[in-house]
Formats: sequence, structure tokens, C-alpha cells
Amino acid sequence: MADKFMSMKNLTFTLHSRGGKYRSITPDYLNDHNPKTIDMVFKAAFDLGKKVLHPMFEEMDRNPPQLTDGSVRVHKGVRPMLETLGEDGWISALFPERWEGENMPSSLLLCINFIFATANYSASVYAGLTMGAANLILSFGSEHLQNTYLPPMLAGKWQGTMALTEPEAGTSLGDLATEAVPIEQGKSEDGQYKITGEKIFISAGDHDGVDNVVHLMLARIKGAPAGVKGISLFVVPKFRPDDKGNLVDNDVTVTQVFHKLGYRGAPITGLRLGEKENCIGYLVGEEHRGLLYMFQMMNNARLEVGMGATSIATAAYHSALTYCRARCQGRKITAPKDSMPVPIIGHADVRRMLLFQRAVAEGSLSLILQCGMYEDILAKDPSQKDCHLLLELLTPVAKTYPSEMGILSTSTAIQCFGGYGYCDDFPVEQHFRDMRIHTIHEGTTGIQGMDLLGRKLTMDAGRALGLLKQEMEAAIAAAQQHQELSEMALDLSRAMAMLEKTTLNLGDVAMEKGPDAYLADASLFLEMFGIMVIGWQWLTMADAALVALGKEGLKKKDALFYKGKVHVARYFFSYELPKMEGLATTLEKSGQMTLTVPEDCFTD
Amino acid sequence: MADKFMSMKNLTFTLHSRGGKYRSITPDYLNDHNPKTIDMVFKAAFDLGKKVLHPMFEEMDRNPPQLTDGSVRVHKGVRPMLETLGEDGWISALFPERWEGENMPSSLLLCINFIFATANYSASVYAGLTMGAANLILSFGSEHLQNTYLPPMLAGKWQGTMALTEPEAGTSLGDLATEAVPIEQGKSEDGQYKITGEKIFISAGDHDGVDNVVHLMLARIKGAPAGVKGISLFVVPKFRPDDKGNLVDNDVTVTQVFHKLGYRGAPITGLRLGEKENCIGYLVGEEHRGLLYMFQMMNNARLEVGMGATSIATAAYHSALTYCRARCQGRKITAPKDSMPVPIIGHADVRRMLLFQRAVAEGSLSLILQCGMYEDILAKDPSQKDCHLLLELLTPVAKTYPSEMGILSTSTAIQCFGGYGYCDDFPVEQHFRDMRIHTIHEGTTGIQGMDLLGRKLTMDAGRALGLLKQEMEAAIAAAQQHQELSEMALDLSRAMAMLEKTTLNLGDVAMEKGPDAYLADASLFLEMFGIMVIGWQWLTMADAALVALGKEGLKKKDALFYKGKVHVARYFFSYELPKMEGLATTLEKSGQMTLTVPEDCFTD
Repeated sequence: MADKFMSMKNLTFTLHSRGGKYRSITPDYLNDHNPKTIDMVFKAAFDLGKKVLHPMFEEMDRNPPQLTDGSVRVHKGVRPMLETLGEDGWISALFPERWEGENMPSSLLLCINFIFATANYSASVYAGLTMGAANLILSFGSEHLQNTYLPPMLAGKWQGTMALTEPEAGTSLGDLATEAVPIEQGKSEDGQYKITGEKIFISAGDHDGVDNVVHLMLARIKGAPAGVKGISLFVVPKFRPDDKGNLVDNDVTVTQVFHKLGYRGAPITGLRLGEKENCIGYLVGEEHRGLLYMFQMMNNARLEVGMGATSIATAAYHSALTYCRARCQGRKITAPKDSMPVPIIGHADVRRMLLFQRAVAEGSLSLILQCGMYEDILAKDPSQKDCHLLLELLTPVAKTYPSEMGILSTSTAIQCFGGYGYCDDFPVEQHFRDMRIHTIHEGTTGIQGMDLLGRKLTMDAGRALGLLKQEMEAAIAAAQQHQELSEMALDLSRAMAMLEKTTLNLGDVAMEKGPDAYLADASLFLEMFGIMVIGWQWLTMADAALVALGKEGLKKKDALFYKGKVHVARYFFSYELPKMEGLATTLEKSGQMTLTVPEDCFTD
Repeated sequence: MADKFMSMKNLTFTLHSRGGKYRSITPDYLNDHNPKTIDMVFKAAFDLGKKVLHPMFEEMDRNPPQLTDGSVRVHKGVRPMLETLGEDGWISALFPERWEGENMPSSLLLCINFIFATANYSASVYAGLTMGAANLILSFGSEHLQNTYLPPMLAGKWQGTMALTEPEAGTSLGDLATEAVPIEQGKSEDGQYKITGEKIFISAGDHDGVDNVVHLMLARIKGAPAGVKGISLFVVPKFRPDDKGNLVDNDVTVTQVFHKLGYRGAPITGLRLGEKENCIGYLVGEEHRGLLYMFQMMNNARLEVGMGATSIATAAYHSALTYCRARCQGRKITAPKDSMPVPIIGHADVRRMLLFQRAVAEGSLSLILQCGMYEDILAKDPSQKDCHLLLELLTPVAKTYPSEMGILSTSTAIQCFGGYGYCDDFPVEQHFRDMRIHTIHEGTTGIQGMDLLGRKLTMDAGRALGLLKQEMEAAIAAAQQHQELSEMALDLSRAMAMLEKTTLNLGDVAMEKGPDAYLADASLFLEMFGIMVIGWQWLTMADAALVALGKEGLKKKDALFYKGKVHVARYFFSYELPKMEGLATTLEKSGQMTLTVPEDCFTD
């Protein structure tokens, strides 16, 4: 296995290279964390990643979770890992002091999750899920729920989950059928309900690395309205505390552990609730507002999915880079036939593949940290509503671009290894498998496309796109200060104009043919939009790199790093940005044919 | 598992829809096989695929080959399968009557391999490899070698392999180091050599489903020139016949079985030759001409790789189609919220994904059968040298387009299933894994790109591209007879002009900057070229479908099939062909930056 799985230099550079209007309004958005303390935190996370998570990377894949006697056995390293993450305060980091947290800004938390996920994606999700679930309890749960559940969850002793999907309700959450019936005799502080139903695809839905599992579960209170407006949120633990504080079985049965292509270190489970009519759920917040609450978590979860994909792509890139430097084969076409073989990084096509992987992984990281910045500015100053709009607009891209392009990027990592990449002697085949889930969980690419085009572009009278345009224009103006970036700056302006034209055309389609036609090619629009947005990020990074290069007393290694950044930006603008052209053509000329192709024409 | 893995209707339609100049010159290129006999042969192959190969599809993957006590144990179904394929004449089909074959045309053989590979790709390669190896012996081996090896190979009792790759020589075959030293005392009819060396990634390099393994192996005769011109071809059996005709051990040691991402039903082995200095190889043909001989097999092997990828994409598409018809979830945006969920094939984005898969799988099939036609015309009439040029030009595309696009196509099949697609309850995750080898074996995509741009476009004073243009113009002229296809015909003309412009630009790059610059973006040129070529195939198929639709007395089901074909062609021209635009831009503006990015800029 390659030892190197991420670049700390790149991570800190990317974090600190944020630009634009809001950065200058709120320069201290990282909440008084200065570069030095940030380095220390990242270093500590990296050490943990390297010593605890990374050594289990292959083992967890080769020995996936097993369902035995009703409970799920996972790798024996999971329990000590979660204990360490709890004890050292990683799980509670984002929480307020009252919960022994340190109010860590989202940007930094995203970076920490990036570090853990580059070390071992499957291992990193356990704590991430617990954080998300605990955050929901903190945001919407009663004092009693908080006191009961947060301490053991934040200590890494109890696992948190998001329990949404059902056999007949995945993408269409409105159809979910798990039922909650109020228990009248209870005098507890929390509304208690009897839960019956079935859930599937629940990540970390059960395992023996913790003492309890706490499901943040969507269910429908008996008699609630149909559709998404009748969904409520419950805490449904595996073991519930009884009146004396003892933990008793809560009638949550594990029906199966799914056998997956990748992401095998984490158990994805099927659950049956209330088989013996003895499963109690505790209402979180108000009735029927469950999906609203869940979406607060979901938006963040979508950024985390993007970050997971980014992390896997990053680790695969570093494996490929190490290999391409060490592996000697072939020579330049113009070299003498009897010359020694050169390291394959010397071949143009191999460099192209490495540049592609870097462009995807580092561009994705930059976008997600851009979203993190908007989150953090908003957290400091809730009056910055525009940051909220930008965050909403960019979330489907930050989820999808890394996930979709990550499939190609990890595939390209395999290609760098040739036949060896297809074998399990090297980690890239696992990265390729681990990657493939990300376009599916937390909303498929199709759903993200409809979210972008149908909700985000139209919300608040369509203001979000204008705000993004301002941000991009600021980046373009900054880049134009450098001769070297002037052509890229111009290319990004053109890309923006192209996208605006496409958006206007789609508006006409909506007027003429209605919403189904407007959204028919939403996935392609998202793809086009994503390329432009990543172009903006690369221009921002190239700008920051050139600024850094202008400083005196630069170490040679740092100078090479900054020059490398500019080269990757050039790569992106030459090789990736032009893909928008074909997408623009398709969006203009498809005539939304997918709507009208008769179904029976698929007969053959 | 989905029962349907291919469409016979589509296969026969595609075979018979060949058009163009050479078809009309040699209409009987299928060597007197009429549609009825062809149907019978295909039906027999399908029955075998369904009854023998397909039932082992998952089992072979879940129980991959194991190296035990020096030999490789494979699925117990492999031996009876090979015996059946031998006894029923499938392995000998392409051979002349003398070998109890029936001189089957390449086109039909490709179709048969397609049928077998859609049923179970891994299972299909065993016999395919034997055919290829036997064909080399037939073409270049002595009478004695033929008599010794062909009968048991064609009977399915002995396995054939292609043994090229070594630890330090994969893509760069010229570096191979396996050595052959002449044995002087031998008075055998065949030149005997002592072989020493090491080979890796040898498909079916050893297994217990046969009684012997016959390696068609490249090695360097001691004292031979360096590079590719010093390579000779040998027959190196696992057991060699001694003077009395008994089989004795030939000192071929299996060093390992590779653990692979997919394609797990077939053993890929490492071999050590001559550990005890007792490995004998028999020279095939003349000294130092080994690579030349091997390339005859390799060109065909490349078509077979394209066909393998096409087959896997086809099987995955049929799984996805079956699922999308059965799975109900969600509803149209404009439908009432309380209406019943619809089969997901009703959603535009799902249809787009199905159309994409069909466009890739059926377009690829069509191209490979186009190549098969050129092969068959050439076999009937060796004076048709232009067919040879066209075949040479199209082979890298027929290998690469299905392989590269197949990764996306099987990935899209997974996406159609959502979370279920990521689990092994359905076959598509296996298809995705099985697919990934094809851009690597028999020459990576990078090699294919250089082959196309560096050799195929320039050979014979660059005549091949002009010949292709004539073929495409014939297809365009035919399509223009149908009002419905006029826009597509125009689009293909434009695509051709765009490609010609790019080719001219690259010619200038070659003049100004030399061959390394000319070839720097060869992979992208291949991608662009491939899209155009598949566009040509779709226009040809749409034309044939409309001609068929014009006939009287058509069954409703057939009419739907033909209409469907035209819809997929429309999809291709709206959604796939435009991708050429971005590639053209990149090829023009990249400035071959991958050549000049300093290596140390990858430092981070």
C-alpha cells in the first residue's frame, strides 16, 4: 500500500486560498483559529488517520461486516477507534462548550473529515454519522433527549444513524410507511410513540463497536397527511433507558447486512422496527416537521458525501502518483531504442491522467471548502443571507461533481497502474469500488440535478445565480492581475455567458412545455454547471498560488508546489472546461426527447 | 439475476444492417450463410449460453480461482463447458474442414462470442483464448506442431494462451527478457529451445478444467537484436509430448494467481519458465518474427476485447431495463401527489440512462460487426486491400470505445438500480467490475490512441482516413433518403469536417514540434474519432431500421423495435455526438502542455 494518502500542504493551501466578497467581509470566519492552531489540529488528525484508520484500510474491506445471531460484527479496530475519537474530542468538536466541544467551524471540520476519509473512507463514516445525528438532537431535541443521548454519542460509545430509506421509499421519501402511534400513558418529557416498519440501507445501523445505536428516524404519525408533509422525526435507540436508567431492548431487529461493491468496512443494514410491538420512538421537535429537520442534516450530509468522494479520489491520486514515479517502462518516441526505460510519469499520456486526477480531487476540495466558508460566515453572522443562498445553490454541485467525476478519477488511477491496478496488490481497485456509492447515497445525481434546476435556481426569485456570478466576477477580476491567468479569466467569463444562455433557453422550455420538460435534462445541466464552478475554483487557486509565488524567500519546494497549482489550473481550462460546449449543445438541441420516447420502444 | 442478458433480434438486425461500398461489392461476405442458418447457429449458441455459461455467472465470481499445490483450481463447470464447446464444434468453427471446422466467417464468430460473453464474460474467454492460440499455430506453425497441438486444443481438452507480458515489459513489449537457447542435439521437426524467464498476467495460464495448457509465448533467442525486432514466438506447453508420445512435465511453474477487481471467473496467472532448466519451447515460424505473428492474433484479440466490453455492457443494460420496468417509485412532477408511484422507466432521467446504455452497447456492437465485415470481405477476396486499411484504422476504436464507454455504461446501469445496484443482489455491480479490465488488456487506451494517430492515420500515405470518409459519405447519402434522418446526416457531415480540421491541425503540430507533441493528446483524439465513428454506425442502423419500417406486413413488435432504433440514434446525435466539440477545442488549445509540465511540479 502507498503510504502517502493526502497532502497537508495542499489542504492548508486550499483552506487559506478562499477569496471573494464574503471572505473580505468576514475575514475571521474561521472563528479565531489561526493558521498555527489549525496546523496543529490537522497534524493531530493526520496522526490519528495514519496510525489508527489507515492500517485497517484493506483489512476492513477484505473482512466485511457479518450478521451473526442478530447483531453485526465489524472489524475489531472499530471500537478502539471510536473510543479514541470520542476521548480526544473529535466527535464533539463542532458542539458548544456545554457538551465539551469547541464550536469548531464547519470548514475545519470538513478538513478533518477529509483527513480521516483519505486514510480510510469506511472507517471515517462511523463518527461522521454520529456527529450528524447528535447535531440533530442538539438542534431540535428536548433537553431531556439531549441529556440522555448526547454524552454517550459524543464519547464514541453510542453510534448515531440517519434512518430514512425504506424498501418502497428511497428517492421518493414522501412514500415512506414506517408508522408511529402515540403512547398515551407515558408521562415522560418526550413524546413517546410505538414504531412499526422497515428501513433499509441504514449506514452503521448496527454493530458491535459500540454499546448502543441511536437512529434518527423518519416515520409517519398515524393519521398524518400523505406525502412529505406528514413525516416526523424520532429518536429510536437500539436499547432504550427504562425508568431506572437501565438499558432495555427496544425491539429493533437487524434483518440483513448488505453485501456491497465497496465501502465494505461499514455495515449497511436492513432494520425491522416493532416486530414484538415493543419499539419506542421519541419525537424530536414538532410533529410533521421531520423532513424539514432532516434536511438541515441532509445538506451537511451532502457536503460530507462530496468530501468523502473527494477524499477517495485524493488517496487514489497519491497512490497513482507514487507508482508513476517508481515504475519504469517505455521511453520517449524520439529517444534511442536502446536507452533505459523511464519512469512512466515521463509519458505525456500518464501526466495527463495524473493532471486529470489532481484537477478533480483538488478542485472538488476547493469547492467544498468554499461551501464551508459560506456556512461559517453565516454561523458568525446570520444576517449574511446571501451566503445561505450561495450555499444552497452550490450544495448539489459539491455533492455531485466529486462523486461523478470521482468514478472517472479513480478509474484513471487504475489505468495509471495498468494490469496491476486491476489487482488487489494496490489500493486503487478498492478506491474505485469505495467511490461508486457517492452518486447514490444522500440523493442520487438525478435528484441533485432537479434540486439545482428546479429549486435552487428558482428560489428567492432566482437571486442565487446572480450572487454566484458576482463571486465569479470577483475571482476573474483578481486573476486578471496576473498576465499568466488572463486567458483563463477570459475563458471563465465565456463559460459563465454560455451557462447563462443555456439557463435562459431552459426558462423558455419551462414556459412553453412545463416543468417536466424543464427538468428533463437536469442531470446534464448540473454537469455543465459543475464544470463551470470547478473552473472558478481553479482560477481562485491559481490566483492564490501566483500571489504566493510573488513572495520573497520562498522555499524551492513551496515554489514548485505553487507552480504545480498553476499548471493544473491550465490543465483544467484546456481539458475540462471545454466539455461545457458539448453539454450546451445537447441542452439546446435535445428537444427533451427522453420525455417523449415511447416506453414500449425499449422493447427488443 | 435478470434472465434476459441479450437481444437476439438486435444481434441479427445489427449483423444484417451493414451498408456501404464494400457490402455492395461483396454481398455474400458471410460465405453462403443465409439468414436462416445464421439464426439456427445463434440459437444454438444462445441455448448453450443460457444453460451452461449463464448459470455459473455469479458462482464463478464469488469463488475465484485458487492456487493449490502448484496448480490452479477453477469452477467445476469449466471442464464440462470446454468439453461441450469442443465436442459441438464451437472452438473449431473458424478452422478449415481439415480440422473439422467450417470456415466460419469472422462476423459470425464475433456474434457467437458476443452471445457467450453476454451470458458470462469470464466463462467465455477460455475457449476464445484457445481459438486464438490455435489459429496462430495453424497460420505459422509447422505441420508437426499443428498435428500435435490442434486436435486436443480444438476439442477443448487443452487450453491455449497468449503469453506476452512480463514484470518489466507490459506496454513496452520490446523490453521482454524471457530467453530461448537453441537445443542442438534435437532432431525433431520443430526447432527446440530451452526457455527461461517469467511471465505475468497470463489469462487462463493454468487450470484444472483442461489436461494441458499451451502457451503461445514471446521470448528472445539468445543473441537476438534488442527491442521488438529480436522477439520470436514459441509453443511452450505445460506438459510436452516425449518421443513416445507421453506427456511429461515441461517445467512451467505457476507463481501466483492474481486477485482481481472483476473478471474473476478466469484465472490470470504468473508463470516461471525453466526453474529446473527443463522447459522446452518450440519455435513457431521463423526466428525474430514473433511480434509480427503475434500481431495477427492481437488485432483479432483487440476486436474480441471490444466485443467482450460490448457484451458486458449489453448484459448490464438488459438487467437495468428489466429493473426499471418493474420498480415503481416516484411520479411525474405534474402528477397529483397522492397518485400511485410509476415504474421508474417513466422518469426522463431514467430513460436517458437507458438510452445511453443502449447507444453505447448497440453502437459498439455495430462497429465491431463492421470490422468483422471488412475481415470477411478480405478473406474472400484478398485483392480488397482497402478493406484491410479500414480494418486497421478502425481496430483501435473498436477496442477502445466499447471499453472506455463501457465503464460509464455499466456505471449507469448501477445508477438505474440506486442503492440496490451497489449490492450484489443484482448482477450490475459485477458487470461494472468485469468491465474495468478492457481498457487495459491487449494494449491500453493510451497505446490504442498512439496506434490510431501515429500508425493508422499515417500508413499508406494516409489513405485510410479518406476511405473511411467515403464509407461515411455513403451512409450519409443513404440516410438523406429519409426525411427523418436528414438532420442527423448533416450532423455527421459536420462531425467529419470537424475531425478533418483537427487532424490537419495535429499535422501542423507534428511538423512544428515533432512526433512527441503530435502524439501527446492521442488518447483524446481517439476519443473524438470514436464518437464520430459510432455516430456513423448509428446513422447506418437508423437507415436500416427505417427501410425495414417501410416494408409491409410488419409485426407490431418488430415495428416498435425499429422505431426504438431510430430513437436511440436520435439520442446519440443529441447527447453523444456533441461531445466532439469540447474534444476538438482541447486538441486545438492544449498546446500539448502535458509534455512540458515539469515532473517536479507534481510534488506537493
